[in-house]
Amino acid sequence: MTRRVFNFSAGPAVLPEPVLRQAAAEMLDWQGTGMSVMEMSHRGREFMSIHARALADLRELMAIPPEYKVLFLQGGGLGENAIVPMNLMGPKGLADIVVTGQWSAKSAKEAARYGRVNVVADAARAGRGYTFVPPQSEWALSKDASYLHVCTNETIDGVEFDGPPAQGDGPGEVPAGVPIVADVSSHILSRAIDVSRYGCLFGGAQKNIGPAGLTLVIIREDLLGHAHPMTPSVFDYKLVADNDSMYNTPPTYAIYLSGLVFQWLRAQGGVAGIEARNVEKAALLYGAIDASGLFENRVERRWRSRMNVPFFLKDERLNDAFLAGAKDAGLEQLKGHRSVGGMRASIYNAMPVEGVRALVGYMQDFERRHG
Amino acid sequence: MTRRVFNFSAGPAVLPEPVLRQAAAEMLDWQGTGMSVMEMSHRGREFMSIHARALADLRELMAIPPEYKVLFLQGGGLGENAIVPMNLMGPKGLADIVVTGQWSAKSAKEAARYGRVNVVADAARAGRGYTFVPPQSEWALSKDASYLHVCTNETIDGVEFDGPPAQGDGPGEVPAGVPIVADVSSHILSRAIDVSRYGCLFGGAQKNIGPAGLTLVIIREDLLGHAHPMTPSVFDYKLVADNDSMYNTPPTYAIYLSGLVFQWLRAQGGVAGIEARNVEKAALLYGAIDASGLFENRVERRWRSRMNVPFFLKDERLNDAFLAGAKDAGLEQLKGHRSVGGMRASIYNAMPVEGVRALVGYMQDFERRHG
Repeated sequence: MTRRVFNFSAGPAVLPEPVLRQAAAEMLDWQGTGMSVMEMSHRGREFMSIHARALADLRELMAIPPEYKVLFLQGGGLGENAIVPMNLMGPKGLADIVVTGQWSAKSAKEAARYGRVNVVADAARAGRGYTFVPPQSEWALSKDASYLHVCTNETIDGVEFDGPPAQGDGPGEVPAGVPIVADVSSHILSRAIDVSRYGCLFGGAQKNIGPAGLTLVIIREDLLGHAHPMTPSVFDYKLVADNDSMYNTPPTYAIYLSGLVFQWLRAQGGVAGIEARNVEKAALLYGAIDASGLFENRVERRWRSRMNVPFFLKDERLNDAFLAGAKDAGLEQLKGHRSVGGMRASIYNAMPVEGVRALVGYMQDFERRHG
Repeated sequence: MTRRVFNFSAGPAVLPEPVLRQAAAEMLDWQGTGMSVMEMSHRGREFMSIHARALADLRELMAIPPEYKVLFLQGGGLGENAIVPMNLMGPKGLADIVVTGQWSAKSAKEAARYGRVNVVADAARAGRGYTFVPPQSEWALSKDASYLHVCTNETIDGVEFDGPPAQGDGPGEVPAGVPIVADVSSHILSRAIDVSRYGCLFGGAQKNIGPAGLTLVIIREDLLGHAHPMTPSVFDYKLVADNDSMYNTPPTYAIYLSGLVFQWLRAQGGVAGIEARNVEKAALLYGAIDASGLFENRVERRWRSRMNVPFFLKDERLNDAFLAGAKDAGLEQLKGHRSVGGMRASIYNAMPVEGVRALVGYMQDFERRHG
């Protein structure tokens, strides 16, 4: 008997059930070829068609302008913390970074090995943890940075940008010539993102896209070709772009799975359709937390992530009982990140609203019993 | 209806059918957890158990000594062409490399970006292509190299070492203090390899192990900790080793699949059992080629790969007819690498002897009809 739970893991994370069913059905024989997708040469006609369709669907879903390349890489978001500066530091050798949580803090640390780093703002300095995005008017922006790095959704801290930084020639704006790089690992495809406002977007696949082991980079063509000479060839964006992500053997099965997720997303009404559902899911969960006397979320309302909802029990002695009861109710992987404690519910695209309703129902019941 | 062909792809390549069946059956619900392995947190108890078992089975299959670490990485064999020198060049800054085919040639080229490279021998210089391993007595070995690099099975050229280079204080031997690094991508687990003779073994998984997107590194502990400061953290062998390959999110599903392959291999009698079958398969195919007037393999007999068998039709005008007839007979992906032309049959562990018999039968029939 197949059992399914509601899985709130922060990543690797829940995938759409129809996608898993199709992958299972096609495991031994993809469309009459007599081969699993895992067994296909990446240069064969069959896999090339899978690759091309995944790419085309992603471009359509995100309305990626033609002057942007989409790269399928390996190494995850953490890998990109090094690969981005290797490719984009260039002769200026200066990265501006906004620190809004643990991921951007890590990015700043790693980038410092490839050039100078200017932390233009660090939310933690205010003394209330990573609970907000510092106002752009207070960012100490450089005039001539190689790029500005932001993490537009902090998976651990649950802090999400509500739009791209303002860019232009006005005071406090990111100078027009400085490309904005965004780590979108944990909210890509969950909301409309205006790609044209960024020089480069990147993310590990294992939250809103597919299995771990695939990294996506979306980059404006004029930023290619400036890699540091020590950049490994397989991570030189220009080489990868010139070879349509086939410079080395790509993670073929992860690309296939991601392609199935893109098809599923199109059937959900694309990004607009899923965004409406994500807004509804987030409203349900934050609403229940705010109405409760037992649970709390500490992020400023404007900056609350729609994807990752960290919350705490005001009586932490109840944590274990909460998790054990959740497990019994088929609500899995709710334990908070080890660095912050408490709970975290990740409610990515593939989490159905029924899962959020079940969680809210369990929380209310738990509070009645223990409140 | 599920159809299966005999798939001779050089990689990604055929996987054992029982492994694919199990993966399909467990796709939505791994052992009653209600989650696909793809959906599990890499730090959760369930995936940790999958990871630990895969590691233990691999250690047992290869009899890996305790002073060696096994790392699960990303980026494939080509990625390691950069990551190995970044980790192992150290202050000596000199890599000795034996070039026996296109893979080691690529490794030499990439390593030259991280230090000096001494090509101690290059089979191509003899003017008869990559058809043999130059005798070790002729290698121009450095006295004080950071490491010696060999590719012990050349996937494209079909040239395989029959054992590790001799090491010691005698003339022509690799100096005792120089670690030997071997790219074993395309023959790992296909034959006994004495790990203790090497400082480091590495390979992409997509030939004899599992799906593309996983890279294996087996490294002696004393070689850890000398990475160049520009090495991306996720590829710093010491950091990865200290974190049990969980420094970043590993390619979890590829590790799971590889673990199933390890279990299957144990059921085949381990490496000794599969090696006996590989010897039989190679003898069948090379025997048929050598007995034929139409087909030829150009590699010196001693150095013929048991895994990758390139062969040519003496009348190349028959190539298309050969491939079309093969496809009709359910024999897939036999076209040779684009750089060498002709045909190539990769007969990895998961290729049953029936597949080789079917190929040999087809070749004999084709020769009767066209010879």
